[in-house]
Amino acid sequence: MNISLQQAEAAVAAAKEKARQLNTLMNIAIVDAGANLVSFARMDDAWIGSIDLAMRKARTARYFNMESGELGKLSQPGGPAYQIEHSNGGLITMPGGIPIRNGNGEVIGAIGASGSSVENDHLVAQAGANAIK
Amino acid sequence: MNISLQQAEAAVAAAKEKARQLNTLMNIAIVDAGANLVSFARMDDAWIGSIDLAMRKARTARYFNMESGELGKLSQPGGPAYQIEHSNGGLITMPGGIPIRNGNGEVIGAIGASGSSVENDHLVAQAGANAIK
Amino acid sequence: MNISLQQAEAAVAAAKEKARQLNTLMNIAIVDAGANLVSFARMDDAWIGSIDLAMRKARTARYFNMESGELGKLSQPGGPAYQIEHSNGGLITMPGGIPIRNGNGEVIGAIGASGSSVENDHLVAQAGANAIK
Amino acid sequence: MNISLQQAEAAVAAAKEKARQLNTLMNIAIVDAGANLVSFARMDDAWIGSIDLAMRKARTARYFNMESGELGKLSQPGGPAYQIEHSNGGLITMPGGIPIRNGNGEVIGAIGASGSSVENDHLVAQAGANAIK
Repeated sequence: MNISLQQAEAAVAAAKEKARQLNTLMNIAIVDAGANLVSFARMDDAWIGSIDLAMRKARTARYFNMESGELGKLSQPGGPAYQIEHSNGGLITMPGGIPIRNGNGEVIGAIGASGSSVENDHLVAQAGANAIK
Repeated sequence: MNISLQQAEAAVAAAKEKARQLNTLMNIAIVDAGANLVSFARMDDAWIGSIDLAMRKARTARYFNMESGELGKLSQPGGPAYQIEHSNGGLITMPGGIPIRNGNGEVIGAIGASGSSVENDHLVAQAGANAIK
Repeated sequence: MNISLQQAEAAVAAAKEKARQLNTLMNIAIVDAGANLVSFARMDDAWIGSIDLAMRKARTARYFNMESGELGKLSQPGGPAYQIEHSNGGLITMPGGIPIRNGNGEVIGAIGASGSSVENDHLVAQAGANAIK
Repeated sequence: MNISLQQAEAAVAAAKEKARQLNTLMNIAIVDAGANLVSFARMDDAWIGSIDLAMRKARTARYFNMESGELGKLSQPGGPAYQIEHSNGGLITMPGGIPIRNGNGEVIGAIGASGSSVENDHLVAQAGANAIK
């Protein structure tokens, strides 16, 4: 199962709406089950450096079927995944990347959000992921 | 002047509509005046390899304020821009990348389309660029 | 639909058998529908430089659902896909990459072979692709 | 002395068997004495991000003839190999990479496993390495 463009655009729309509620400016990326980009949006005046961050957070979440921030807890000094960021051309393990599952619990893609505090990034990604049933 | 996300999404929508008319599946990317990604869409089952091509065509068009295919004519063996593709982390000089101008003729971004013949790619990009006034 | 490891290993086995018949030494790579590696084998004393070639041929074939050598015809000077090799981190457009389809004609992955003449590389890849029903 | 493809495939088979016993899904990579890939397998639905991790663990183990996890102890903040991960295009120093020796104790290659906890990754890699005499 793979996320459709229609589903991906619904996730981006929900994420943008959440960003507006939080009064932030976000970059939002959606990848499919193969970790390949499906949809992307950068809100006006959002950080340029977050284009790449949003995409890497989304890929990281799909690479390991895990929220990027959870992986970041494991990659701290002394942790079991210390320095995992050196793999896959560069992972981003800050919060803001979340796997997207269908109704059967299968991972069909992932969303990454970047543009504000990691707390806000996570909330925006979550709003996007929750828009998919 | 910079393209807005609203304008970029209108360009993507027009490009998708054109792709449907041509019975093709496209990847469509919009970059701003700084050559940084603003909006992206991959139609269901469109070529995965065209994600990167669409983005590079868009950047190439903005880097030189020139249609990517025009640059490709100059980069042939013996031509004045021979092997220019080696610059900027890799240019794509096939048709399908077009600068986007506002009503005053200023370049505010660019669109790249990839997923079919270069003739179709160009038509789809053109439809997207024309959606911006 | 995605190729399974069992299918991928059957394709590698058939490709190795063909390589032995041709008295060549091959590197053989299988990617899935998302262009991610599933199975790989390098025959003893096969070219080390062909590890990367086999993988890139397989990815190239899946990226565009096209035999890598067909793309290579289009990427010659003056051709419509001239210099496409600069995309996707480096394409390989020599023969030896072939999409793998299931019984319904859907692309479920691709095979890449490298280690001898491109004619032999193609025959070996074809033997591997034909092993999947 | 160099690991043969037959030996590498036996190591992969033993590693897959161990993964099944542990009820995990693994990516398994074997490199030769030159740190170049010989054999690779990704079990169905195993993490996509672990393709690269398995390969890097195997290379890391052969680069220094040391278990990857041992190097990871040395690369912690304040340790003698701090930030060694930045070398060689990116090392992975988590457990799961193990040198493979022949009967004379000579290193003939290495195995890397990734797909679960680092404890499981290590057990799977060990089962693979032990399959070679």
